[in-house]
Amino acid sequence: MALIVQKYGGTSVGSVERIQAVAKKIKAFSEKGDQLVVSVSAMSGETNRLTEIAQEIQDVPSLREMDVLLTTGEQVTISLLSMALQQLGCDAISYTGSQVRITTDSAHGKARIKSIDDHRIHASLGAGKVVVVAGFQGVDEEGHITTLGRGGSDTTAVALAAALKADECQIYTDVDGVYTTDPRIEPNARKMNTVSYEEMLEMASLGSKVLQIRSVEFASKYKVPLRVLSSLIDNPTGTLITSEENIMEKAIISGIAHNKDEAKLSLIGVPDKPGIAFKILKPISEANIEVDMIVQSVSAREGLTNFAFTVHRNDFSKAEEILQKVCKGLDAKAVQSDDNVVKVSLVGIGMRSHAGIATQMFEILHEENVNIQMISTSEIKISVVIDAKYLELAVRSLHAAFELDKE
Amino acid sequence: MALIVQKYGGTSVGSVERIQAVAKKIKAFSEKGDQLVVSVSAMSGETNRLTEIAQEIQDVPSLREMDVLLTTGEQVTISLLSMALQQLGCDAISYTGSQVRITTDSAHGKARIKSIDDHRIHASLGAGKVVVVAGFQGVDEEGHITTLGRGGSDTTAVALAAALKADECQIYTDVDGVYTTDPRIEPNARKMNTVSYEEMLEMASLGSKVLQIRSVEFASKYKVPLRVLSSLIDNPTGTLITSEENIMEKAIISGIAHNKDEAKLSLIGVPDKPGIAFKILKPISEANIEVDMIVQSVSAREGLTNFAFTVHRNDFSKAEEILQKVCKGLDAKAVQSDDNVVKVSLVGIGMRSHAGIATQMFEILHEENVNIQMISTSEIKISVVIDAKYLELAVRSLHAAFELDKE
Repeated sequence: MALIVQKYGGTSVGSVERIQAVAKKIKAFSEKGDQLVVSVSAMSGETNRLTEIAQEIQDVPSLREMDVLLTTGEQVTISLLSMALQQLGCDAISYTGSQVRITTDSAHGKARIKSIDDHRIHASLGAGKVVVVAGFQGVDEEGHITTLGRGGSDTTAVALAAALKADECQIYTDVDGVYTTDPRIEPNARKMNTVSYEEMLEMASLGSKVLQIRSVEFASKYKVPLRVLSSLIDNPTGTLITSEENIMEKAIISGIAHNKDEAKLSLIGVPDKPGIAFKILKPISEANIEVDMIVQSVSAREGLTNFAFTVHRNDFSKAEEILQKVCKGLDAKAVQSDDNVVKVSLVGIGMRSHAGIATQMFEILHEENVNIQMISTSEIKISVVIDAKYLELAVRSLHAAFELDKE
Repeated sequence: MALIVQKYGGTSVGSVERIQAVAKKIKAFSEKGDQLVVSVSAMSGETNRLTEIAQEIQDVPSLREMDVLLTTGEQVTISLLSMALQQLGCDAISYTGSQVRITTDSAHGKARIKSIDDHRIHASLGAGKVVVVAGFQGVDEEGHITTLGRGGSDTTAVALAAALKADECQIYTDVDGVYTTDPRIEPNARKMNTVSYEEMLEMASLGSKVLQIRSVEFASKYKVPLRVLSSLIDNPTGTLITSEENIMEKAIISGIAHNKDEAKLSLIGVPDKPGIAFKILKPISEANIEVDMIVQSVSAREGLTNFAFTVHRNDFSKAEEILQKVCKGLDAKAVQSDDNVVKVSLVGIGMRSHAGIATQMFEILHEENVNIQMISTSEIKISVVIDAKYLELAVRSLHAAFELDKE
């Protein structure tokens, strides 16, 4: 008898009919004999509805009271889903985050789970019940209600699985798994059967935002086997995200990620003195702008260097403004900026033991006349920044050249 | 510095605008320097909305899950009201029933409060905050969410006042106090400044259902001064419900209550043997029918007796059917039934020390040619059952004769 934690998102429980459909799925699953803990989100639209009411009342809604307000969303879902299960003759019981002591820190609106009391859940499972737990919510040490922030239901499910030492944590969503690349760009993209936590974290930006990054980090930390599957089809197999050592056939390249939200900023001809990286990036980070890739290169002219980095496209003009000031202060030649770039990344744990992947990637892009503007590498990822117009071409040619469409 | 518990019902917090209006009242009150604990209901309509969804899902909704579902209603209100207070610059904090350990028995849907942990509330009051507590809800010893049943918010407020040893519990509603009789029947009805718990309990049926009976019982038990006042007017004084010993000027008659929901059933000519009352009423109570007045009288024929009682009009035909069977079993002459009767009651603690009130009442009714069908008396109440058509006449003539329109 296995213990499975399942998570259904807001869309899956967005109406009475959908709650009833989810109940049917759960009942069928529970009849196979496994123990089931189900974590659910608020019905889709509910969180937005409550947020709008709060905004009518308070200019900057209190984070503590927002958490009291928003957690009613999942509380409604757990009771309705439990009723729907009981109606089908499947014994079920609901618990709020407070009732199973999903203890978090006190960071309202973005709390982090510290522990879960598994005692009650095990008792209810032992009594033959399906246990329905409110996702997204917890309580701090003093009993104040907290939320994990948007998408936190994934994290709740993984944390439940970790606390209960579940055999698998299944995240039901509207996609049927993790693909080798965004299928909207490359129709030959293939659903992976397994992928490692590390790769999944690097690929988090892959097209459809399949999983919250934090839930993958959590799963990785506690070695929770995590499966993403579709709630729209019968008997889905999805993609299993697990430890590297559990993956038998390690592909050299697992997938190709891309990010369209990048913008590039360069400071050209900076006098090369110690501390220039710090002097350039400090005002940027002080403006709460997150920097992604950073590349420092030697300039053609002696004693001068070029410094480039990427930011989210939303922060582009603000960052550019700041950089213009920095340019004067550092006596640099010029600021070059380009918000028409994308980042394409090759991801694969096999890279660790295979040299020459980067060279091969650059060659493929060169053959397609794709000019590489920035390069950044990690142990299991190679990212390049290229002109936005080459995005599809780059993804498709890399996908084909590395034969990602084949098992 | 006094400690006041206030309660606002669902209509008072039925929209964003009304929540803002209540917040203004609370702020003005708190600026007078008193400590304030506010108990609120769900926004009007919300409980019905949730109940309807549950009924769509489960034929007979689980009582436990209904409580999980319905308690979200007040949880929404407490957070929104706290936000509205904060927006006005009035520091406030919300607590669910679970958070202040409003501990109840486990009777889901109609739980009774056993204790309240006043520790947190006192701490928040000490920190200068208005404390907003969800009405209607609690948790049982095992932490399961419970509700006190409809109207339970009044009881929560009184229980909070008792636990906190508050100076007064104020129930804000849409009437401005307790009247000597139903003003819709007698326009000269006068708002009372004070009334005793005992009288209030006897008068609970007075026209507008001002207070939940349970909350008055609770207030009486714990000697909580309870004030009913209007949330629609400024600086209301309302009616104070308190212990008899706190009432200086004890009126002989405080008010005239009436009840239109009565129906009368009589068993005529029952052979007078021991145990007939039991034999008649047992099948009635087994059918979950509550009996109000009971009168047993000697019949004109020797050895026979007449037995009459009243039930709620909704139970009339069911009770009549049962009584027909009882009639045969007891070899009685006949069943007489009349669902066109009303009950009119004189209530006053002064009756204890004044003889002759009953005689006076019967005389007044006789003068108006109102025929009395049943009489029942308690220490502080005299009730008569009369033909429904005489209701207004009886109430008005008694109100005038006992000079209830005068202080």
